[in-house]
Amino acid sequence: MSTLLGDLPRLFPQPDQTIAGIGRAIREGRLTCVDVLRACLDQVEEWEPKVHAWVVLDRDGAIEQARALDEELKAGKDRGPLHGIPIGIKDIIDVKGLPTACGAKRWADRIAEDDADVVKRLRNAGAVIMGKTVTTPYAWIDPPVTRNPWNLDRTPGGSSSGSAAAVACGMCYGAIGTQTGGSITRPASFCGVAGMKPDKMWLWSSKGIKPFARSLDHVGPIARTVEDLRLLFEAMSEKRFLSIEANHYPPHEGPVKLGRLRGFFDRRATPAVLAALDDAARALNDAGAEIVELEDPVDFERILRDHRTVMAAEAAREHSDWLDQFPDDYPPRIRDLILEGRTPLALEYFQAEGRMSSSMFELLKAYEQAGRQFWITPATLDTAPDPSTTGDPAFNSPWSYTGLPTVSFPIGLAPDGLPAAVQISGSHLLDQSLLRAAAWCEQVIRTWQQ
Amino acid sequence: MSTLLGDLPRLFPQPDQTIAGIGRAIREGRLTCVDVLRACLDQVEEWEPKVHAWVVLDRDGAIEQARALDEELKAGKDRGPLHGIPIGIKDIIDVKGLPTACGAKRWADRIAEDDADVVKRLRNAGAVIMGKTVTTPYAWIDPPVTRNPWNLDRTPGGSSSGSAAAVACGMCYGAIGTQTGGSITRPASFCGVAGMKPDKMWLWSSKGIKPFARSLDHVGPIARTVEDLRLLFEAMSEKRFLSIEANHYPPHEGPVKLGRLRGFFDRRATPAVLAALDDAARALNDAGAEIVELEDPVDFERILRDHRTVMAAEAAREHSDWLDQFPDDYPPRIRDLILEGRTPLALEYFQAEGRMSSSMFELLKAYEQAGRQFWITPATLDTAPDPSTTGDPAFNSPWSYTGLPTVSFPIGLAPDGLPAAVQISGSHLLDQSLLRAAAWCEQVIRTWQQ
Repeated sequence: MSTLLGDLPRLFPQPDQTIAGIGRAIREGRLTCVDVLRACLDQVEEWEPKVHAWVVLDRDGAIEQARALDEELKAGKDRGPLHGIPIGIKDIIDVKGLPTACGAKRWADRIAEDDADVVKRLRNAGAVIMGKTVTTPYAWIDPPVTRNPWNLDRTPGGSSSGSAAAVACGMCYGAIGTQTGGSITRPASFCGVAGMKPDKMWLWSSKGIKPFARSLDHVGPIARTVEDLRLLFEAMSEKRFLSIEANHYPPHEGPVKLGRLRGFFDRRATPAVLAALDDAARALNDAGAEIVELEDPVDFERILRDHRTVMAAEAAREHSDWLDQFPDDYPPRIRDLILEGRTPLALEYFQAEGRMSSSMFELLKAYEQAGRQFWITPATLDTAPDPSTTGDPAFNSPWSYTGLPTVSFPIGLAPDGLPAAVQISGSHLLDQSLLRAAAWCEQVIRTWQQ
Repeated sequence: MSTLLGDLPRLFPQPDQTIAGIGRAIREGRLTCVDVLRACLDQVEEWEPKVHAWVVLDRDGAIEQARALDEELKAGKDRGPLHGIPIGIKDIIDVKGLPTACGAKRWADRIAEDDADVVKRLRNAGAVIMGKTVTTPYAWIDPPVTRNPWNLDRTPGGSSSGSAAAVACGMCYGAIGTQTGGSITRPASFCGVAGMKPDKMWLWSSKGIKPFARSLDHVGPIARTVEDLRLLFEAMSEKRFLSIEANHYPPHEGPVKLGRLRGFFDRRATPAVLAALDDAARALNDAGAEIVELEDPVDFERILRDHRTVMAAEAAREHSDWLDQFPDDYPPRIRDLILEGRTPLALEYFQAEGRMSSSMFELLKAYEQAGRQFWITPATLDTAPDPSTTGDPAFNSPWSYTGLPTVSFPIGLAPDGLPAAVQISGSHLLDQSLLRAAAWCEQVIRTWQQ
């Protein structure tokens, strides 16, 4: 069985290494849910001692879930494309019966009494919850124990470190992360897998999820392909919200129209990352995508400052009292953020927070004026750095701040042998259009790379 | 016609001086909508030169509305209990075609392009929109031009000054106000009429209403009786929210159980106000209400400080830039509040704001433990003071802060000849239960007074 996932990590997975492919195999009776889970557990055996992606692996519980899902299929009950798919849950999200440690020792014995709403949805859709994946402490940037499966001397990124690393080396087929700055798309990119930060307005319940900075917190999927992101996204979403977009914004016909942002992203990205994006852009262009290069329609440096003000103040809101009571729970970087968050005036916070929606509208206006549907940018400044850091979220935070949906996926290996990734960002609430466009781009790049 | 309203102001109106009574007369064909409007316009003729309750009186528009509503009735279209009822709208709420000046000269020519959502609802329910009633500048406490109809040397209270004064002397049958501290129940009490600040969670759209401090802003009705408040409240509300309470909390059987709060309210109220409340409590007790005296379940002094922090910071959010640009628009008290609102730290704001819901839950827990359904307190510290101030909102602000619904109505005249009022406050979202209980109490006190 282990041959299923045995050649991971790799940029472009075999069909049976994807949720879409393995899901079909399960539902057509070619494999059982237990077979698929065992393949993942074999990968855990192989990789976990080196990668440290899991806080808790619920081996017995997962086998029990997989068996029950096999019984259901035998009895004719098919829960859909996630039926029997093993997934991991970031350890700031409650899974009933398992602890939610939030990357802090103090909480390691706190057993969740119920599933977070997002976990309930995934379970209802047939996912097998394998366990809890490593988060940086309280989902900030202090380095985690997790390492990058592509190179154990590199960081997997953060804060959804375990979620990205576990998916990358086949320990699970998908994982759920959260993002306040760049905590989904950055680790996904560093680990050579796909990540999605949905639109902020997606009204997923935050019940059972430890907040970090409430105005900026998002929940989203990590998987090996954009199609797999879509399957997880649809299972996480309320059907009535999906149908709003489906009814009001029918699938776009004709070529994908991309605006490539150059100023801020070109200044900050490394030459290797820019070269990878240039190659990808050429491949997309050759395949019929219409790409135009655009000046920055907003001041991204100002957005980063405002994002920082909002995040620090709101993190202090969650943690300031706890830091005083339990200083040992807080490693240096989150401690510094909380101290920083004690300093802004309410009015400064309001101003930084008030520019969130105006920045979004400026970006949307620029889309329209340029006749574009999506932005294309590098997903990260560089490939994964050494594990003393989790990398720079500067290319991800603007989408957390404005709330616009964004999808990242790998486009190739940089000269250092590590994955480089692209980020496609879309319009307000049009997550499904974005996923379709990103899947098309991913397919073009994969064909060109192979 | 003017005999209808000619003996106002008075504490306990005749049936035809109420929305309920005059509404029946209109719908039964005993009076036309135009008759009723003309009676109000006669009162305007008499009182407005002394009281100054209106910023804009839309005499022609109102007559046109009343005529159209008479035509509808003739054609068999009956919009319900507000059909043909003349009302006033506080001048921070948009009425299509009229200016929304917010008590500031700069805005006096800014014509609203559309009705605020709450005005739309009232219009649909058949109300005749007579015009815009005076607000203090930007709905804070700088004294307005309006005077108290009971004594022209006294303030009507604020910030819904014109709304309360206009209803008190029969210039309209009801009015809409807003409350961030005590801006509905305070002026209503000073002017000897009834006021309601609904539960914060009533999801009335704030579209078309100038914000003052968004976490604390409420919209609510002012009228001559609690029954009239109910008619306005129901017209302002979405039917589906009304049905939630109706379905889940059926009308209570048996005696009304009141908890009388003594500590904070006794310390701050004047002897005259406390004596009026004692009399009212005795009358209620004799009529079968169960009243127990209770220690304060929350620290109301702390609530006032937190309320102030939230209000000042959020007022600065709305006004700080404008104050710098247009200092002449801001009279001294609102200017000082905005300057004060620039000083709290974001964390201090978050802490004060975070205690809003915990204070509410403390109050609700105390209700349950005491086996009470409602609190009874004085509605104001004193009767209406001189017009250099709008009075002290200390007894009203706690309900704006916790968001719990509250209703005030007059219980008698104090030795100075001015109205004293009581405040009945209820449980989270149970506005309709509160209105029923307050209407019962009002009837008991009226019977006892007469």
